[in-house]
Amino acid sequence: MRKINKILVANRGEIALRVMRSAKEMGISTVAVYSEADRNALHVRYADEAVCVGGPKSNESYLRGDVIIDVCKRLQVDAIHPGYGFLSENANFARQVQEAGLIFIGPSPEAIELMGSKLAAKAAVAKYKIPMVPGTEEAITDVEEAKEIASNVGFPILIKASAGGGGKGMRVVESVDVFEEQMKLAVSEATSAFGDGSVFIEKYISSPRHIEIQVLGDTHGNIVHLFERECSIQRRHQKVIEEAPSAVLTPELRDEMGRCAVDVAKACDYVGAGTVEFLVDENLNFYFLEMNTRLQVEHPVTEQITGLDLVKEQILIAEGNPLSFRQEDLQINGHALELRVYAEDPANNFLPDIGRLETYVRPQGLGVRVDDGFEQGMDIPIYYDPMIAKLVTFGKDRQEAIEKMLRAIDEYKITGIETTLPFGTFVLQHEAFVSGNFDTKFIERYFTPSVLEPKPTEDAEEIAAVLAAMLLGNNKPKVSATSTGAQSGTVSNWRKNRVK
Amino acid sequence: MRKINKILVANRGEIALRVMRSAKEMGISTVAVYSEADRNALHVRYADEAVCVGGPKSNESYLRGDVIIDVCKRLQVDAIHPGYGFLSENANFARQVQEAGLIFIGPSPEAIELMGSKLAAKAAVAKYKIPMVPGTEEAITDVEEAKEIASNVGFPILIKASAGGGGKGMRVVESVDVFEEQMKLAVSEATSAFGDGSVFIEKYISSPRHIEIQVLGDTHGNIVHLFERECSIQRRHQKVIEEAPSAVLTPELRDEMGRCAVDVAKACDYVGAGTVEFLVDENLNFYFLEMNTRLQVEHPVTEQITGLDLVKEQILIAEGNPLSFRQEDLQINGHALELRVYAEDPANNFLPDIGRLETYVRPQGLGVRVDDGFEQGMDIPIYYDPMIAKLVTFGKDRQEAIEKMLRAIDEYKITGIETTLPFGTFVLQHEAFVSGNFDTKFIERYFTPSVLEPKPTEDAEEIAAVLAAMLLGNNKPKVSATSTGAQSGTVSNWRKNRVK
Repeated sequence: MRKINKILVANRGEIALRVMRSAKEMGISTVAVYSEADRNALHVRYADEAVCVGGPKSNESYLRGDVIIDVCKRLQVDAIHPGYGFLSENANFARQVQEAGLIFIGPSPEAIELMGSKLAAKAAVAKYKIPMVPGTEEAITDVEEAKEIASNVGFPILIKASAGGGGKGMRVVESVDVFEEQMKLAVSEATSAFGDGSVFIEKYISSPRHIEIQVLGDTHGNIVHLFERECSIQRRHQKVIEEAPSAVLTPELRDEMGRCAVDVAKACDYVGAGTVEFLVDENLNFYFLEMNTRLQVEHPVTEQITGLDLVKEQILIAEGNPLSFRQEDLQINGHALELRVYAEDPANNFLPDIGRLETYVRPQGLGVRVDDGFEQGMDIPIYYDPMIAKLVTFGKDRQEAIEKMLRAIDEYKITGIETTLPFGTFVLQHEAFVSGNFDTKFIERYFTPSVLEPKPTEDAEEIAAVLAAMLLGNNKPKVSATSTGAQSGTVSNWRKNRVK
Repeated sequence: MRKINKILVANRGEIALRVMRSAKEMGISTVAVYSEADRNALHVRYADEAVCVGGPKSNESYLRGDVIIDVCKRLQVDAIHPGYGFLSENANFARQVQEAGLIFIGPSPEAIELMGSKLAAKAAVAKYKIPMVPGTEEAITDVEEAKEIASNVGFPILIKASAGGGGKGMRVVESVDVFEEQMKLAVSEATSAFGDGSVFIEKYISSPRHIEIQVLGDTHGNIVHLFERECSIQRRHQKVIEEAPSAVLTPELRDEMGRCAVDVAKACDYVGAGTVEFLVDENLNFYFLEMNTRLQVEHPVTEQITGLDLVKEQILIAEGNPLSFRQEDLQINGHALELRVYAEDPANNFLPDIGRLETYVRPQGLGVRVDDGFEQGMDIPIYYDPMIAKLVTFGKDRQEAIEKMLRAIDEYKITGIETTLPFGTFVLQHEAFVSGNFDTKFIERYFTPSVLEPKPTEDAEEIAAVLAAMLLGNNKPKVSATSTGAQSGTVSNWRKNRVK
């Protein structure tokens, strides 16, 4: 047991604020680090102390573990929270933090390392009965051997780089004819991207759902799971909409996947908050994919349905406290959804659309939570992930959570850049999403930019209404709302039928 | 069963927005009414349609039931939601609404009338075993008779106007010597305030807690309670901080008070959301006080612990739907607190402090909800209740809800006017509040304006830090934060020890 009095958050944006809020509630003081691009960022203002650690590029600042550890020593910091991304899954950094006598709020460097290699992870969990996608037991580079395994597993198969992640070094091979050619490309891609050309081969699940289980482990050997998150709505292999619970899991399947996730965590003596990812096929067979050894972006949906604050749990665990609850104390209450609001243009292949938040008005009210790191007038820096906010809604059931999300999206006023908000509206109104009958191919299958285009008749109606109002001399409140940047709802006001 | 497609909200500010958000989620379109003082108010912008109904004074606009009913006819409105205050407990208005063929989202005019008279209410619930504060059975005006009753009940006693409310026409009499004089004053006060000089006399509970039970009744005779709200922290007999559940109720007492509240609702065939108020003495004896026949300001704490949306329930009931749950389906999850953020100066006897919201930045994050009707740059009108916002926090237990409230208050940036935020910090850190050992005398007993004054040493430190930073040329980010009105955290930035 070692009480934490001061935490440095080695991150930026919404997750830095998220961590600091919980720390503050626990009476722990906070240190922010920031790059030169983030001088005026909200996480810098929120912290009790803030230190500039370098230039705008990540490798000049947020990835400078050495500088960050130096700051900790100077400011007598007890513990480092890495957030997600940046240094959060860097085993060397975790080790250096410990060697400097500081607490790393996360798992051991060994667990990070083990789960960081897909192959080592597979080997580590081998003694538990964890369902795996059929395929190679070990990483290979030999084409002939690989071809034989692929034929035994049955096409389509997937070639994955052993050291890969985020979709890099992955290839789907539909038939044996093109196998050799694809294998060679995959090995060469993996070698240049990760310095490690070994790959493994597995059965390709053509319409998978991505469902993950949140786990928490303490330093006393207790491990529990906090149920699942459904994360199948993705663009470019990255999640956009997540929810908890999943619309398709039965209580029995939830228990079974939960038990498997706890076993995976046991296999690496996991300490802290982690996530075990599974693929689920159309017959609800599930297969272990990988373990993420950090807090996930989408952790809020789990917080909303369990009533737990995952950052507080991480800190309590890092202090050496045993978990204050057992598996049987946990239950799901209601339903939560998260939409990642990216500075991206969904009508233009989700390409980043960086710029200034000319208008930025958040939605409010019962069942709405916005985790963000920006305010009106700020610029979205080009150097980092273009996520502006996480819009989270929760209600007594899935339908209410969806209705709240649609209402909240409508209430969210962002101008100056394009965002994924209209894409959210599209998904949440789509029959496949509403019915729960969807998978990771959702966007590929249903989305085209044209679905976001406003219907011409609506535009015409709007213009006519504005002109009519002006002619009738009723334009005063509208004009004042339009001319003041600080005011919201300008566009939707135009649709109103104001009566005097 | 009659489906509601369009609702007019006969109210303003946060409650108008609150109602419209739920209506929107249900696919119901909304009509706002507004006074000339509220032209640019958020509720006007949020509604699908908005109609100016008159001058800035309440009796020129929000109390003009006739004008409001006319608007409904013109715009083909199906139902009126009255919010709280204004016309919400006006039986005549409710009757006129019904006579115009509209749905009044609330109880019957008869129930409003019955519960609007303390004496009629007492008589109506007489057949149920509802504990009452000992005193007169009927309203009286005769001094001699009153004196005899007072002596039988035992001093101190309370004289209350039969038609009173909000503390008006109430007098505590400590001994028989001064009874006659006080009684005459009370009768004359009641006559001039309410046009009805009748009073009743009851035992004065010197250190009561104010605890109320939320009830919901449908048109099919089902009535349930949604547990209690503790509302003992009051200034001028008006609530400032509320919470659910109460820190002192046992499960048995909760059940008993809940059953009594349901009986009170039965006694007036109650339909919709209502609140049964009780006084609880230091030995946890409880006494029926009155029933409020509307949605309460403090309803959000009940929503947070039950997961129900009370406005949606009101609308569903008004449509004729039966409740979708039974008493045994309801349970308490976690703990919620509400602080009413008033434009009042707690250092100056809580007098209204009207003006412009020069800075207005809301707190965010897990477990924080802000229901308000303002944004930065707006003026608080002098014509209405000076409440700016309701700051609601919720956590897994009372301690977490308190920690979140303290964090949220700190994060709330309001400049330009004084507010009750610092008062909130004082209460939530006070030993009596933290221990749960408090009553309606909290302010009288513990609060003096001096507790809010900043410690001089802190000020000195702050000034020194700012000067030092300027001399060292480190003032750039601070100056930019200070000079831009749209940015937050200016003051707390000054406290930071920035290290470069």
